[in-house]
Amino acid sequence: MAIADDDQRFMRRALDLAEQGRGLVEPNPMVGCVIVKDGRIVGEGFHECFGEPHAEVNAIANAGSASLEGCTVYVTLEPCCHHGKTPPCTDALLKVKPARVVIAMQDPFPKVQGGGIQVLASSGIQVSVGACGEEAARLNAPFAKVHQQGKPWVIAKWAMTLDGKLATASGSSKWISGEAARAEVHRIRGLCDGVMVGSGTVKLDDPLLTTRPPGPRTAARIVFDSQATLSTSSRLIETISEAPVIVAVAESARSERLDRLAHAGCQLIVCQGSGHAERMEYFLRQLALRGMTNLLVEGGSQLLGMLWDARQIDEVYAFISPKIAGGSDAISPIGGHGVRNMEEAASLVRTDLRSYQETICLHGFTGF
Amino acid sequence: MAIADDDQRFMRRALDLAEQGRGLVEPNPMVGCVIVKDGRIVGEGFHECFGEPHAEVNAIANAGSASLEGCTVYVTLEPCCHHGKTPPCTDALLKVKPARVVIAMQDPFPKVQGGGIQVLASSGIQVSVGACGEEAARLNAPFAKVHQQGKPWVIAKWAMTLDGKLATASGSSKWISGEAARAEVHRIRGLCDGVMVGSGTVKLDDPLLTTRPPGPRTAARIVFDSQATLSTSSRLIETISEAPVIVAVAESARSERLDRLAHAGCQLIVCQGSGHAERMEYFLRQLALRGMTNLLVEGGSQLLGMLWDARQIDEVYAFISPKIAGGSDAISPIGGHGVRNMEEAASLVRTDLRSYQETICLHGFTGF
Repeated sequence: MAIADDDQRFMRRALDLAEQGRGLVEPNPMVGCVIVKDGRIVGEGFHECFGEPHAEVNAIANAGSASLEGCTVYVTLEPCCHHGKTPPCTDALLKVKPARVVIAMQDPFPKVQGGGIQVLASSGIQVSVGACGEEAARLNAPFAKVHQQGKPWVIAKWAMTLDGKLATASGSSKWISGEAARAEVHRIRGLCDGVMVGSGTVKLDDPLLTTRPPGPRTAARIVFDSQATLSTSSRLIETISEAPVIVAVAESARSERLDRLAHAGCQLIVCQGSGHAERMEYFLRQLALRGMTNLLVEGGSQLLGMLWDARQIDEVYAFISPKIAGGSDAISPIGGHGVRNMEEAASLVRTDLRSYQETICLHGFTGF
Repeated sequence: MAIADDDQRFMRRALDLAEQGRGLVEPNPMVGCVIVKDGRIVGEGFHECFGEPHAEVNAIANAGSASLEGCTVYVTLEPCCHHGKTPPCTDALLKVKPARVVIAMQDPFPKVQGGGIQVLASSGIQVSVGACGEEAARLNAPFAKVHQQGKPWVIAKWAMTLDGKLATASGSSKWISGEAARAEVHRIRGLCDGVMVGSGTVKLDDPLLTTRPPGPRTAARIVFDSQATLSTSSRLIETISEAPVIVAVAESARSERLDRLAHAGCQLIVCQGSGHAERMEYFLRQLALRGMTNLLVEGGSQLLGMLWDARQIDEVYAFISPKIAGGSDAISPIGGHGVRNMEEAASLVRTDLRSYQETICLHGFTGF
């Protein structure tokens, strides 16, 4: 019981360390590591930046020159046993001769999956798997989704009035939420690989979709725009030097439009498939192949509706302002077909509620 | 300064007492009274029930037989000086010979308005008006609205999904919010004089609109139903012995329909006016004339939209569940015309946020 309690405590610390890599390590997973000897932490570290040393190596370095023989190593993800950008972490661990390695979860990455555990166990090290396993799985759910489903983690964000409107009937939406809420949206953007909107939203709002101030990542600005209608005088293209613009088009898009966008500096992804939903599926796979882990979708209603109907949304930030707009023709955040019976409506799980001045934000996960 | 601080403190206590009459005293105002002698409270009371003694009389009785001469009386509303269901409170106060009477606000009721203050002041009593005046005005805003505008205080309530839907595209709405939220709605109903819905909501949901369990008041169930289409086999009419059913109809409603509803036990109010908005204005005035102070409007989108467009909503309870329904054809809480530009959207004031299990409720006031 005491050992299990300690395992939880040290693993929580390792998870807190891992979290510090968010936005900096993707498409790698976030990983934290704590080395314990005689009941106290003698070294700790985390994977700090993509391409740089892994958590285990940082923790060993942090422990200094004292012998770690007989120590317990806590690591939030199974140590790697293959040569990637850095040598295998199992090698580094074997050198310090730990008595025990506690691992929160197996690596979902096919090249590792259980291999690291096996290397350690067959070297006479006691290996425990599963301490804080659920927390660890949540931490790296986007990483796992990429490797298990071949698609990025999709985060939907919208801001609506208290009466459920994304804009007035005439399309006016500036501003539903307050400054503090908009700052939070920029913080989220700065942790993502891409920010996606539909072509209708670009036409209506002419958004910048840059992250202001910049965050750890520079999100590509993505337009789902089957017919390649994006205007070269849009603010997205005018600011193309600030962050890439990716346009997802259908095979049927006219080639002169594609040429024009390509010349303007856009990256074009021609999506196979006969309808929006098929093309979206194809496009998401392309984004994962390009190393994208987290995709933020900021609307509009049609795009979010399509993703919702396809059960492709993993996480939601719904900002709700105390404003009331009214209007039977005003659009609500998620269009598409929707569910037929309210009983079929999905309920977000692990929700939390935050306040940004007068705007509230309900955040949660779909658990699909 | 010390006196002002004491005035605030004792008046707050009087306001807390007044609040205890909510749902029991209407169409009278809620009033609380505290009697202070030598710096301590020697008597307190509130208006407990319509037709029964006023706060001042209860506070004097609570003080017992000791002499109150030279005391300070705190009362949340100007004492009445006219014979209504009970004798004038100014008479009762003059008898105890207070040195000072502190009044939070003037009575907006035309028969009193300043008259009570004058009676006291001209008898040599020091009268102060305005301590906690704003709180007192909020407490009795519904009472004031009835007397100043001739219309009841309108409270809008809706329950929507996190994506702003009042129902799915097919009209299914059971259940958006959880049990705890629905219990809160019943609590609110039990404080109101009427619960109103549109004829569309009755057709779609066939609601009971009773208060379960019963509260201090029994709200009449009101249907805004211009063409008197309410079915005599609706649950409203089936349960007509549990709470009155009032049907607001247009002058153009067919007489056989009116006869049928009248025979089924409904109260009919034929509303003058050429359109929904005019008829609603007429109807609200009729409800105030019938002694209604608080009217809860529970939808649907069309009725709430009409009231919103007419700036007739005073208070809002918006229940938001973490469910997502989706659907471009699903209806959002407030229809009607709505505002054209988001800048024109009204923002609720004095908002508070409450949680009922997984459902949240943003409550606030329009300040119109």
